[in-house]
Amino acid sequence: MFEFRVVNRSSKSRARVGIISTKHGVIHTPAFIFCATKANVKGLTIEHIKNSGTQVILSNAYHLMLQPGNDLIRRAGGLHRFISWDGPMFTDSGGFQIFSLGHGSVSSEIKGTRFGDRRRTLLRVTEEGAEFRSYIEGRIVNLTPELSMQIQMDLGADIIVTMDECTPYHVSKLYTANSMEKSKRWAIRSLNEIKKYGRQDTQALLAVIQGGIYKDLRQESAQFANENDFPGFAIGGSLGKTRAEMYEVIGMTTEMLDQSRYVHLLGIGGIDDIFEGVRCGIDTFDCVAPTRVARHGVAIVKSREVLSRSQKGMNLRNSIYYDDFSPISESCSCYTCRNFSRAYIHHLLRAREILAGSLISIHNIFTMNRLMSDIRIAISEENLDEIQNDWCKN
Amino acid sequence: MFEFRVVNRSSKSRARVGIISTKHGVIHTPAFIFCATKANVKGLTIEHIKNSGTQVILSNAYHLMLQPGNDLIRRAGGLHRFISWDGPMFTDSGGFQIFSLGHGSVSSEIKGTRFGDRRRTLLRVTEEGAEFRSYIEGRIVNLTPELSMQIQMDLGADIIVTMDECTPYHVSKLYTANSMEKSKRWAIRSLNEIKKYGRQDTQALLAVIQGGIYKDLRQESAQFANENDFPGFAIGGSLGKTRAEMYEVIGMTTEMLDQSRYVHLLGIGGIDDIFEGVRCGIDTFDCVAPTRVARHGVAIVKSREVLSRSQKGMNLRNSIYYDDFSPISESCSCYTCRNFSRAYIHHLLRAREILAGSLISIHNIFTMNRLMSDIRIAISEENLDEIQNDWCKN
Repeated sequence: MFEFRVVNRSSKSRARVGIISTKHGVIHTPAFIFCATKANVKGLTIEHIKNSGTQVILSNAYHLMLQPGNDLIRRAGGLHRFISWDGPMFTDSGGFQIFSLGHGSVSSEIKGTRFGDRRRTLLRVTEEGAEFRSYIEGRIVNLTPELSMQIQMDLGADIIVTMDECTPYHVSKLYTANSMEKSKRWAIRSLNEIKKYGRQDTQALLAVIQGGIYKDLRQESAQFANENDFPGFAIGGSLGKTRAEMYEVIGMTTEMLDQSRYVHLLGIGGIDDIFEGVRCGIDTFDCVAPTRVARHGVAIVKSREVLSRSQKGMNLRNSIYYDDFSPISESCSCYTCRNFSRAYIHHLLRAREILAGSLISIHNIFTMNRLMSDIRIAISEENLDEIQNDWCKN
Repeated sequence: MFEFRVVNRSSKSRARVGIISTKHGVIHTPAFIFCATKANVKGLTIEHIKNSGTQVILSNAYHLMLQPGNDLIRRAGGLHRFISWDGPMFTDSGGFQIFSLGHGSVSSEIKGTRFGDRRRTLLRVTEEGAEFRSYIEGRIVNLTPELSMQIQMDLGADIIVTMDECTPYHVSKLYTANSMEKSKRWAIRSLNEIKKYGRQDTQALLAVIQGGIYKDLRQESAQFANENDFPGFAIGGSLGKTRAEMYEVIGMTTEMLDQSRYVHLLGIGGIDDIFEGVRCGIDTFDCVAPTRVARHGVAIVKSREVLSRSQKGMNLRNSIYYDDFSPISESCSCYTCRNFSRAYIHHLLRAREILAGSLISIHNIFTMNRLMSDIRIAISEENLDEIQNDWCKN
């Protein structure tokens, strides 16, 4: 039911074009996975998401186990039916949120930008699992690898991930090593659990590769994953403190992995990062940015369409757009660009109308999908540098 | 360019089925006009509004003159183009908001539920116009009938209304009489202004009928409107304190009006009110309720689908819907009911996801359009009572 096939490899890098086949359809890779965190992409109907070229969306086991509860979603017929999305779907294990909320913020720890603080909601990590306090009604939950799999089986996504301990940046190498070892044991327990229920063919379980910034630990984690029958990998854990360090960690890790299997990069999705990741052989990316920045008025555009090089994206709150009757991007054929001007969206933002966020989200999703399509073609045509210049440089 | 034609009259009441033809298409009446107050229907793309069977939408000259400014919308090519709506459109004069915000709240004064207080934003009413302070940047604006027409010409809606003084409930009959006389003079100035620019054929100017709850004053206002070449009427001003009084005022007023011309009832749109209004010969209704209640989690359904007779609509926040996997209404074929369950919308409301309001708005708009369609058929088939029982009684 699940299959990953490489259809084209670049001769200049490890970039590759592939096809993931799932029970709910195919994903052409490299692909971007959009976040439907709490069983919806914020502010958008499934119709607009689909019509914006979306192949695959991701929901969070952590949020859904707490609200409305995975049991309810199973009774609803699974997540696909609950949210009315009939395409491929991805869920994470819940571990990442528990650890990152426990440490402070979701993204600060993979990026090493904030000092850890485990006191918030994470109570205790044992060999058994991770105990935390629900942010909904305060009850204490022990998320074990088995429970994470139960939740992800209830949700029924096509691609799921092993429960791991998401190791922060600001810990010793010994801590990272022990944590990676624990993640290996948890990965085996995760795999055993889904096999017990015969789900391994319909729900592809990705092994999370840990090991922080340490090559030997990444090597050990990768080797373990290669030696077990995971249909793919998800690169997790700390990726270092700087962009350069992140690219280095991603590069060395993907190199260690079985080249015939599918590789996802967890939680990273800036345009520059995508180009780098693709060159390392990353097949899919997920990130909340396209819809999050949209809600703050920022449209994703090619860098030459941005006002100044220091800016990321087009901030439509800027008063320069007050009477700008052109679409966000002249070359874009998304629903928003076909129908509305920058001036209209600027007005909606000023009037605090939530439609602004929805219209920009539609554009941003369409644009990320177009970027990935450009990248797929560029890999086959061996002109990834050119395409990257087109998207990223002035 | 503008034409109103009655195609069917009930023999049991003054209910009628008609067709309004405008430059942007036809409106089958009785019809409901949805509020796109600040140049958008809150939380909905135009695509969803159109696909929900909407014939006509209304924007507010008052809000748009202040933000983004009517001049900007004229430069954008008019309101139709600005918001990407190609169907019939309605704007009000701006007067209603100035007076009602000045008095306290928009709806409290037509319904007589709140004592007037002119101190808020309304500064001065003279023969010339109404002076008020902008809630956006504090500047003082004198809205005259001529300025109101300039604004409405800039916006370019198919149906527009005369600038009137919206008389509150808690004033003397003498005040109401003087106010009504002033509204007559302002109506003539409004009509002259649009004729000066040759717009009377493309932008149908409705005369607002004033006179409060007083039959003789309503009579005078109606006679004035009948004697001048307004293509239709909009019933405004205070409609009394109780529902019974409101129906009486509407009934006596519509009776006084030229039966061949189009009649709009300003700001009223409850389902019961619509049936009463239709029997009095009202052709169109507008009200913010369908989308406003949606944002609070309430779906409009036939009364037998509601939990108890004391409730208006289906409150999807109610925990009874936690695991209710049926659509809002089994008999509804709107986008929301075809794709999503009460349980899903309940989850979105609990998780404070704005998509909940959008999905319920789609249902509510579709439902109001279906109600109006049912009413049009019922008038022709002379079974309005039966249809009212179906919609309103348990």
